Amino acid sequence: MSNLPATSFQPPLRILMGPGPSDVHPRVLAAQARPTIGHLDPAFVGMMDELKGLLQAAFRSDNEMTFAVSGPGSAGMEACFVNLIEPGDTVVVCVNGVFGGRMKENVERCGARAVVVEDAWGTPVDPAKVEAALKANANVKALAFVHAETSTGVESDAGALCALAHAHGALAIVDTVTSLGGIPVLVDQWGADAVYSGSQKCLSAPPGLSPVTFSSRAVQALKSRKTKVQSWFLDLTLLTAYWGGGAKRTYHHTAPVNALYGLHESLVMLHEEGLDAAWSRHRAMHEALKAGLEAMGLGLLVAEQSRLPQLNAVTVPEGVDEAAVRAQLLARFGLEIGAGLGALAGKVWRIGLMGQSATPRHVMACLTALESVLGEKVKPGAGPAAASRALFG
Amino acid sequence: MSNLPATSFQPPLRILMGPGPSDVHPRVLAAQARPTIGHLDPAFVGMMDELKGLLQAAFRSDNEMTFAVSGPGSAGMEACFVNLIEPGDTVVVCVNGVFGGRMKENVERCGARAVVVEDAWGTPVDPAKVEAALKANANVKALAFVHAETSTGVESDAGALCALAHAHGALAIVDTVTSLGGIPVLVDQWGADAVYSGSQKCLSAPPGLSPVTFSSRAVQALKSRKTKVQSWFLDLTLLTAYWGGGAKRTYHHTAPVNALYGLHESLVMLHEEGLDAAWSRHRAMHEALKAGLEAMGLGLLVAEQSRLPQLNAVTVPEGVDEAAVRAQLLARFGLEIGAGLGALAGKVWRIGLMGQSATPRHVMACLTALESVLGEKVKPGAGPAAASRALFG
Repeated sequence: MSNLPATSFQPPLRILMGPGPSDVHPRVLAAQARPTIGHLDPAFVGMMDELKGLLQAAFRSDNEMTFAVSGPGSAGMEACFVNLIEPGDTVVVCVNGVFGGRMKENVERCGARAVVVEDAWGTPVDPAKVEAALKANANVKALAFVHAETSTGVESDAGALCALAHAHGALAIVDTVTSLGGIPVLVDQWGADAVYSGSQKCLSAPPGLSPVTFSSRAVQALKSRKTKVQSWFLDLTLLTAYWGGGAKRTYHHTAPVNALYGLHESLVMLHEEGLDAAWSRHRAMHEALKAGLEAMGLGLLVAEQSRLPQLNAVTVPEGVDEAAVRAQLLARFGLEIGAGLGALAGKVWRIGLMGQSATPRHVMACLTALESVLGEKVKPGAGPAAASRALFG
Repeated sequence: MSNLPATSFQPPLRILMGPGPSDVHPRVLAAQARPTIGHLDPAFVGMMDELKGLLQAAFRSDNEMTFAVSGPGSAGMEACFVNLIEPGDTVVVCVNGVFGGRMKENVERCGARAVVVEDAWGTPVDPAKVEAALKANANVKALAFVHAETSTGVESDAGALCALAHAHGALAIVDTVTSLGGIPVLVDQWGADAVYSGSQKCLSAPPGLSPVTFSSRAVQALKSRKTKVQSWFLDLTLLTAYWGGGAKRTYHHTAPVNALYGLHESLVMLHEEGLDAAWSRHRAMHEALKAGLEAMGLGLLVAEQSRLPQLNAVTVPEGVDEAAVRAQLLARFGLEIGAGLGALAGKVWRIGLMGQSATPRHVMACLTALESVLGEKVKPGAGPAAASRALFG
């Protein structure tokens, strides 16, 4: 064992402006370092009740079944599918990026049939195509789509898509991993039935937890299942006895105590700021970044009306080695931005302005760093000045 | 939103001597509070490589496929079953407590047949019964058992059971949630094929991660599958590209960065102490606690030869309200011990001496607190004195 590390890991200081994790506030880091207590301790149970209320507020929902899955966003995604979808079901899945494709995988691994509605990467889900798919297939159990595609920076019209699902008697399963806390996520107003998110995007807690919420329609579908949920770990009927049991709470699994301290703190901070104010801040930082990028001569992939403020897909200029640029940003400034995925690999950078990473400091740091690394490929001095004007007049 | 908490959660100070989580060292808490960095950051990738080596050492295994599942022990359990077991398979499952029962649930939710070998709660798995079951059933895909039953405090003979599995051409799936770091877990020597554990027991990291290790036989079984793994989140073929990919690591899910800092630090501490020294410490603390309990007139449920040092099931004396005692221990001293589960509810307390909770301070705190709360039900002054003699002569 002599070649093993016997020293603590000291992470370098970074500025996180990729597709998540975003920068975590010292208050949240400090919360994670508070002493661990038992997952059935009355004090912890009280904290869980608070957390439920904070998540309901963030989701704009009164759903009783609202909690944090003890795993990352992909576990939250799986929780939605394995609980609602049974073998033989038909699910219309909208694919306009990586995460729609992952939904399709989930549907198929539940033994169900996925009817895929495809849209080009970088464009939103087309409601007309969705309506056609819902009409063309009998007894569609659910419509599944990504509200904010992290792989492309596109927002789809969640309200319209949920309405289409309901008009055809289907449940609406919605990925809000990158949207929750950054742009309006209006679960009850949309009528979304099963919604999952992630802790590490616009909520700015460390990665590892997936907030979820389920409508009464979804609960009814769960109760009407003919088969057992294929995952024991993610079985909502069992999880509810732990998260929803109040004083009679029964043991299911050992909750990630300290991670939940962190998520609680990040939601308290969101509550202090106010959800509307947080949405406005994300929008304002995006406008400033966009002004700076455009002044430098850089373009955005996504058309203006469906651009996510918190995830900016920036077109890599002709003749630029995008990976080398990211490596230089990291080496010179400790600045992390994201690469393109799948069809967009090599073609875009993904610049996140999420949660605690959506500040004027971040916008300016990113623009000056890009200017330093891109050199003569961009117009000198123009970016930060334009961003400053957008921010402060 | 006016009735929402807008204040940070401040956990009370506890002494954790239940069945887990155990007390977390300030070094580990501090590690969790270090700045979050990206899950694909070169510095983070280096930390993951170190973590793999530390886990291999803790498991006493050279298995390449060794990592931490991004979820609690029950996610680790599910990872072992969904990857190795296919619909129609037969699995012999040993049930001598809660967690064996959970294994059976996992087998059935994979569409496989569980042949249950039952032993009384509080006794170890009987190898003769296991052998009979392996002989009586053709083509058994795996034998699954719990090394250290957290619900009863019993150790089963993992080496003998793994040997039986292999003699009958079956894989050995082993739960070491409560054993890893507390008593010998000798994965390669046993020949165990799929082994999972938890971060919050004898490793004394916060709950939420599940170390796992898979033998080359298990990897072969995974590669020979006829069907897709039913869980996308836990699919080892995908996870391996992230954990095992070295510099070519590909994105699967966003790893729980700060939780992994904590696990890394707890494993560095275990490495500093030495695995053999940690096992001896757990044994010595158990001997001291046992001496104290017996001197007070309290008995242990499990026969001496199969008692786990780190999880002590203590018989509740006649006429004592066990829940009231636990409530008093918590109220007076902030001391958490565990209740009995299932068949043992109301009949035993479960006192953990795990990881950082296996110290002379904990032994003495527990005995003096029990004496304070039980009053005339126990012999006054005898417990702590006997423990002190056992510890220091």
